[in-house]
Amino acid sequence: MKLDTKSYKGTRDIYPEEMRLRRYIFDKWARVCQRYGYERYDAPILEPLEIYAAKSGQEIVSDQTYAFTDRGDRRVTIRPEMTPSIARMVAARRQEMPMPARLFSIANFMRYERPQKGREREFWQLNLDLFGAADVEADIEIITVSDAILREFGARPEMYTILVGDRRLTDYVMREYLELDAVQAGVMIKLFDRRAKMSVEEFNVQAAEIYGGQNSSEFLAKVDELVGANSLGDLPKTIAQNGPVDELRTLLSALERRGITSAKYDPTLMRGFDYYTGIVFEVFDNSPENNRSMFGGGRYDGLVGLFGVEDLPVCGVAPGEATLNEFLKAWNLLPKLAPATDLYIIPLGIDVHDIADKLRAGGVKVAVDLGGRKAEKAIKTAVKLGVPYVMFVGENELKSGKFSLKNLATKEEKMTTLDDVVAILTNARNVL
Amino acid sequence: MKLDTKSYKGTRDIYPEEMRLRRYIFDKWARVCQRYGYERYDAPILEPLEIYAAKSGQEIVSDQTYAFTDRGDRRVTIRPEMTPSIARMVAARRQEMPMPARLFSIANFMRYERPQKGREREFWQLNLDLFGAADVEADIEIITVSDAILREFGARPEMYTILVGDRRLTDYVMREYLELDAVQAGVMIKLFDRRAKMSVEEFNVQAAEIYGGQNSSEFLAKVDELVGANSLGDLPKTIAQNGPVDELRTLLSALERRGITSAKYDPTLMRGFDYYTGIVFEVFDNSPENNRSMFGGGRYDGLVGLFGVEDLPVCGVAPGEATLNEFLKAWNLLPKLAPATDLYIIPLGIDVHDIADKLRAGGVKVAVDLGGRKAEKAIKTAVKLGVPYVMFVGENELKSGKFSLKNLATKEEKMTTLDDVVAILTNARNVL
Repeated sequence: MKLDTKSYKGTRDIYPEEMRLRRYIFDKWARVCQRYGYERYDAPILEPLEIYAAKSGQEIVSDQTYAFTDRGDRRVTIRPEMTPSIARMVAARRQEMPMPARLFSIANFMRYERPQKGREREFWQLNLDLFGAADVEADIEIITVSDAILREFGARPEMYTILVGDRRLTDYVMREYLELDAVQAGVMIKLFDRRAKMSVEEFNVQAAEIYGGQNSSEFLAKVDELVGANSLGDLPKTIAQNGPVDELRTLLSALERRGITSAKYDPTLMRGFDYYTGIVFEVFDNSPENNRSMFGGGRYDGLVGLFGVEDLPVCGVAPGEATLNEFLKAWNLLPKLAPATDLYIIPLGIDVHDIADKLRAGGVKVAVDLGGRKAEKAIKTAVKLGVPYVMFVGENELKSGKFSLKNLATKEEKMTTLDDVVAILTNARNVL
Repeated sequence: MKLDTKSYKGTRDIYPEEMRLRRYIFDKWARVCQRYGYERYDAPILEPLEIYAAKSGQEIVSDQTYAFTDRGDRRVTIRPEMTPSIARMVAARRQEMPMPARLFSIANFMRYERPQKGREREFWQLNLDLFGAADVEADIEIITVSDAILREFGARPEMYTILVGDRRLTDYVMREYLELDAVQAGVMIKLFDRRAKMSVEEFNVQAAEIYGGQNSSEFLAKVDELVGANSLGDLPKTIAQNGPVDELRTLLSALERRGITSAKYDPTLMRGFDYYTGIVFEVFDNSPENNRSMFGGGRYDGLVGLFGVEDLPVCGVAPGEATLNEFLKAWNLLPKLAPATDLYIIPLGIDVHDIADKLRAGGVKVAVDLGGRKAEKAIKTAVKLGVPYVMFVGENELKSGKFSLKNLATKEEKMTTLDDVVAILTNARNVL
């Protein structure tokens, strides 16, 4: 019997070259989070299925979870997202946890979806959440950190757009401005969510269907006026004067003062998850070849309370590795990353352990060739690995204390002492 | 309906305090691996069940996997170990991957076991493997790195023992010295594996049963002589003279030359997995209150070939987080780790965003209190979080450029400039 070398469908094997990029992204994520006072946590890969049932949205729970029954007859699932897990964790320490609590994690998730570019069944995400802060200053902070994350990778404001909305304003618009009942509003929100993916005609046909009344042209005109608003000031007067727009106004002007020029109001921004209760936002890639939503977040004040404790205001955001990767690629922001190893030692018939260890003590990362191969073959391995330097070590080198160090990129070869090697290699790494 | 705040049985929620310890362990693991030229990879959390069937051992596959059928009717499992995954990955690139290949990963696994101290259903492990090197120098390297890992945490050689054996020598002993057939040998190996957990009498009864012959006393005397060997030199003469002991001898003397004094030969060391083919080893905690196996490894030359490619020699080791944790606790080697956040800013009625950002630009990790609370309440939060410093920022501070910085441990309060704050806080972190 021959086993298949392919990974499970929709998952990827991460070889060292891709792993360096993953670590580059994860390290930058962690650095930005910590700069803003967020502390790291982790949660189990497996969760009771029920914690997703209330709020994660029908589609995720019934069609996309990796749910199964364990050997002890418990219904469990590989987590499809982090929010219910961290809400559960905070609820478990509701009394003693200091508030506001700034928490982040970098973790993997699984959803049973059709794999496509930038979306796989197993995916990694940063989750950043701010618990215990009801005021809009918390929303401002979450969007500020989201912006700082993109800038950390070298992104400039013109490369992305942060669309901002508010679930409360959406509710107001549905009920008071469009005069829809709760059921109609639910369907209408889903339609708005899909608007970018359909023609205007198609959108209007479906909108009129939802409305269902006689004079749908008046209804469609209202929708049109709403959709055309590019800023809060552009909104139909009745909404601007009577709707809950104060927090959005505060938010947008605070972001502007902070130089976050990518942020703008979007009356059609809905966000899919049922748990959002206030300000929501979504970050879009502006590049023509990858013009798509990258990630989003918002306020979800009702979730912690589902675990039987006093409720707690929360807002958060969850950038994903795959979409960030596509964004960085589209804007040519992906760095070329060297392997961790600084030096490949090629032993010429002797045990080089002592030499290698001296270099390691000096901070050099050293791999040693094995098997007593010819130097040529060993060099080929070093080149394939991408290690920048090789060094030959035989009896003569040991006696003289002089070692031949070769830079594989420039082909330069240089006689050096061990101390020089440490200086050259730790220096080379800082330049990279 | 009220959701339960408990995590799934046998898994743990990792709050920031525990997470700091986890990151401390993972960072040190990665640093040691890279110092020896190992490059990091990652693999999917879900694998086809079949890759474990051949070699992972009956118990793991049929009793301990989190196996289920996905929505597309594929038999999959949450990975119970890493070795088959990395063997699969290397097999997939058998032709182009430079050899020797030094690879490591830090990842989580799940096994359906009864949760107990130092063993949970979800657990994290370092996996370190060296592919493409058949010579004993590879085994020496893997044990050297294993030893370096423990020392990196401050462990001294007297705190642990590295027991070393060889599957080939074991086979020789079973067949030639104890004169057992293959079936008897299999059961005998399992009995040796459990020897430390039973009395001598019980062991002898079961050993005699396996032997099954008339004069079991002669057999038991032979077993006794074997078990009593504390070094290769102690072995019964026929084994020492005719058995495959050369590699073990080379290995043990190389380790001794390298100052790895914890290593010693153990004639009863078996290791559970069916895939080991040569030298095996297991690291034991010497502390009286936690005297147990911590982790192990060895050579498994046959695994890559199962994936339909030319076979490849491999050896590896897999230290786990939980047992390392217990070891560090038992020897008082666990550090007290501060949160990442350096400073908690308490705004006195103004927006402190600019100030916070200036400090962040200087490398200080800053959390800002929210909600306009009284200073006392805000300080309590900072204390609970474990942040070392708080700073008050109001109109007066903004105008004067002088800020009151309070060290929460010493209660010292000091008037400083922003530049001073950067210097003091980045310095404080280096001292920790």
